[in-house]
Amino acid sequence: MSRAYDVVVVGGGPAALISAVTARKYYPDKSIVLIRDVEKGVIPCGIPYVFKTLDSVDKDILPDKPLEANKIEKIIAKVVKVDRNIKEVILDNGEHEKYEKLILATGSLPVVLPIPGVDKKGIYTIKKDLEYLRMLREEVYKAKNIVIVGGGFIGAEFADEFSKIDGLNVSIVEVLPHILCQAFDNEFCTLAEERLKEKGVKIYANTKVVEFTGADTVEGVKLSTGEVLDADLVILSVGARPNTHLAEEAGLWIGRGGGIWVDEYMRTSDPNIFAVGDCAEKRCFFTRRHTPVMLASTATAEARIAGANLYALKVVRENKGTIANFSTYIDGLTLAAAGLTEKRARQEGYDIVVGMAKGVDRHPGSIPGAHNVTVKLIFSRYSGILLGGQVAGGESAGEIINIISLAIQKRALAVELETLQMATHPWLTPAPTIYPIVNAAMDAVSKMNQ
Amino acid sequence: MSRAYDVVVVGGGPAALISAVTARKYYPDKSIVLIRDVEKGVIPCGIPYVFKTLDSVDKDILPDKPLEANKIEKIIAKVVKVDRNIKEVILDNGEHEKYEKLILATGSLPVVLPIPGVDKKGIYTIKKDLEYLRMLREEVYKAKNIVIVGGGFIGAEFADEFSKIDGLNVSIVEVLPHILCQAFDNEFCTLAEERLKEKGVKIYANTKVVEFTGADTVEGVKLSTGEVLDADLVILSVGARPNTHLAEEAGLWIGRGGGIWVDEYMRTSDPNIFAVGDCAEKRCFFTRRHTPVMLASTATAEARIAGANLYALKVVRENKGTIANFSTYIDGLTLAAAGLTEKRARQEGYDIVVGMAKGVDRHPGSIPGAHNVTVKLIFSRYSGILLGGQVAGGESAGEIINIISLAIQKRALAVELETLQMATHPWLTPAPTIYPIVNAAMDAVSKMNQ
Repeated sequence: MSRAYDVVVVGGGPAALISAVTARKYYPDKSIVLIRDVEKGVIPCGIPYVFKTLDSVDKDILPDKPLEANKIEKIIAKVVKVDRNIKEVILDNGEHEKYEKLILATGSLPVVLPIPGVDKKGIYTIKKDLEYLRMLREEVYKAKNIVIVGGGFIGAEFADEFSKIDGLNVSIVEVLPHILCQAFDNEFCTLAEERLKEKGVKIYANTKVVEFTGADTVEGVKLSTGEVLDADLVILSVGARPNTHLAEEAGLWIGRGGGIWVDEYMRTSDPNIFAVGDCAEKRCFFTRRHTPVMLASTATAEARIAGANLYALKVVRENKGTIANFSTYIDGLTLAAAGLTEKRARQEGYDIVVGMAKGVDRHPGSIPGAHNVTVKLIFSRYSGILLGGQVAGGESAGEIINIISLAIQKRALAVELETLQMATHPWLTPAPTIYPIVNAAMDAVSKMNQ
Repeated sequence: MSRAYDVVVVGGGPAALISAVTARKYYPDKSIVLIRDVEKGVIPCGIPYVFKTLDSVDKDILPDKPLEANKIEKIIAKVVKVDRNIKEVILDNGEHEKYEKLILATGSLPVVLPIPGVDKKGIYTIKKDLEYLRMLREEVYKAKNIVIVGGGFIGAEFADEFSKIDGLNVSIVEVLPHILCQAFDNEFCTLAEERLKEKGVKIYANTKVVEFTGADTVEGVKLSTGEVLDADLVILSVGARPNTHLAEEAGLWIGRGGGIWVDEYMRTSDPNIFAVGDCAEKRCFFTRRHTPVMLASTATAEARIAGANLYALKVVRENKGTIANFSTYIDGLTLAAAGLTEKRARQEGYDIVVGMAKGVDRHPGSIPGAHNVTVKLIFSRYSGILLGGQVAGGESAGEIINIISLAIQKRALAVELETLQMATHPWLTPAPTIYPIVNAAMDAVSKMNQ
């Protein structure tokens, strides 16, 4: 059977959902279908929390209600081919669906390193698949010794969550000097490490995995130090790569970073095909080079750009480039970053000034729930433009980073942030006298004047 | 005795403190003295919480540590006169202090309405004075029936705090149709009213006080409806006016709004005298007319501008005008506003479009601590510029409003906010798929296109 739609969206994650919903808002008369190869979508950033916090994997389902509310059809099937000549997608059930405009939101695939023994039973990557996660959850509750290979966000958050399960020994092996060290400067990474260590997590930094030992099933993880860690379950969280299979087969351009090439409006090299989310190439906001950011927040921002501009560049808008905006929460400690770290800014060749401020996120500090908060801001020395920021604090740091993120996107200057007007309240924020974004900017300005 | 200082700051609140500290950062070699008429300063926004939350008034002291750390001298005395001819201030202890640059941060005085019986015992305004607050705290614990006249921030927060004290009957009398209704649109005001009513607070809106009854001491509050409320303690919180006594006596210009006239750099009509905080005239960011905003966050932003520009306009900067940025927290509900409300925007003559979004401040919503969050954004229809925003939510709304506040200050457009990049995390923020600032902007854009 072959049906004809105006808009076909391929994918099961947030980027697919938001592309379709945005397309509906901007083009109320078009027929729209979303095709995905899983019965139910998963909220990607909630995955670490299905093991204990949420009681059940089913609490982390991406709801289909927005599809129904926006009259978007849904097909559960795998797209096996895109035929650009006749503008249709071919499904694994043999059906064909015609499109006027196609949006690829095919996501990413976990990287599997070619370490000896990596194909043994008991070694898992993290897949955005409900059935798979249900199975993994059961295995976790049977395990005693879990080794997490890779200390990025997934690794750190899984370790935090696993440490809430009684009787489980949890270790992280990280090849770089610190966990989370591609997203944060070292002084922030060590805060996360301290929290995890207090919770009993063992961290092996500056360490490679050289072999997975055991017969059919993994029994140990051999490190570059010679040490062998007991393991009955291994999580491989060493990164992900864009899932570009369909696009490559269809002859679309692939970017230098390995994602599907897209222009400022998320159009691929075929003007009727858009790509959004992890599968699409990201350009760095600062350097315009490709950047390997894979986040739902980035993906949904791209999805909104694509959805609006499917049939016409209605309102002039653009993808200004990707700012890496991260936040994580480890046992009551929030760490968050936006834009360039000090480390990365220096690597890229920026002449920078760093401003720091410490404070308390309530005022006076004796208000219940008060938590220390630290803000670090990185500015271009001569232009005074904000390039990046990092926050360590309580839960409010999860939105403080979004003030910094907006300031980066709007090219705020240190002298502007230094006299920023903000709302403050004893129960909710730091005191106006020491609001840490303001104080960090002031610290930076005083260094610029030297 | 007469001493000579380079910089003399007059005041005991945050504006005085931050002026002095900023002056020290920018002018490390100048001698600086802060003169105040109270032994210890009080954190103004913490005052409502000294009655129960903080156990003691002494937990709300504005610390003098920054003075010591920045080598700022301190004199406890009342300034009775400024002599501009010989550039000195005269103290109530007879001493004279010479200045090169003088900063007036003399604050505000509570308004006392000329209601019959207003001078009876048991009727109190709120003063930023430790001794006075200690006395008032004792009186509150002796009281049974407290009537709060005026339902602005002070009135609402005092009512919330008093309702935590067992056995106390608390009422608010407000002349306008809702409490908090100069800061919020009505749908937000009613959220606060519902919370307070659930806590047993009685609210008399659209109601005037016509008389305070009783002999020497207040016994009742007679309303315009004829009803008489029992009262053994009354809080008068009907506003404040700039304390301009010293400035007027010295012949400085007074603005149309009753505050000390200041230019963009917080300089008064005398180039060697600056004024900051509640005593200084505020210009509205939007209309350039005077606006009666009296907030510590506004005051400290002004203090930073004054401190930096005392001796030279070192870095070109300006007070762009005051954005009213408020937040409050009532029994677990945060209400926050920045810029113009819908009501005020229409009154001022703006042609506006309103965007609304509702969501949950964690994702999935089953994450512990999740709270509903509502965002309302007000845009100029033709220019697309953000004019104001309001948030109702959990504690994170206290920083969400600061994203909106920065967006107003940086003249963000609806189409920019619609594709905003933000950091999101299950434990910390709404989902990226329905981030409420983005969704409210999208709602507004769809109405602009109609």
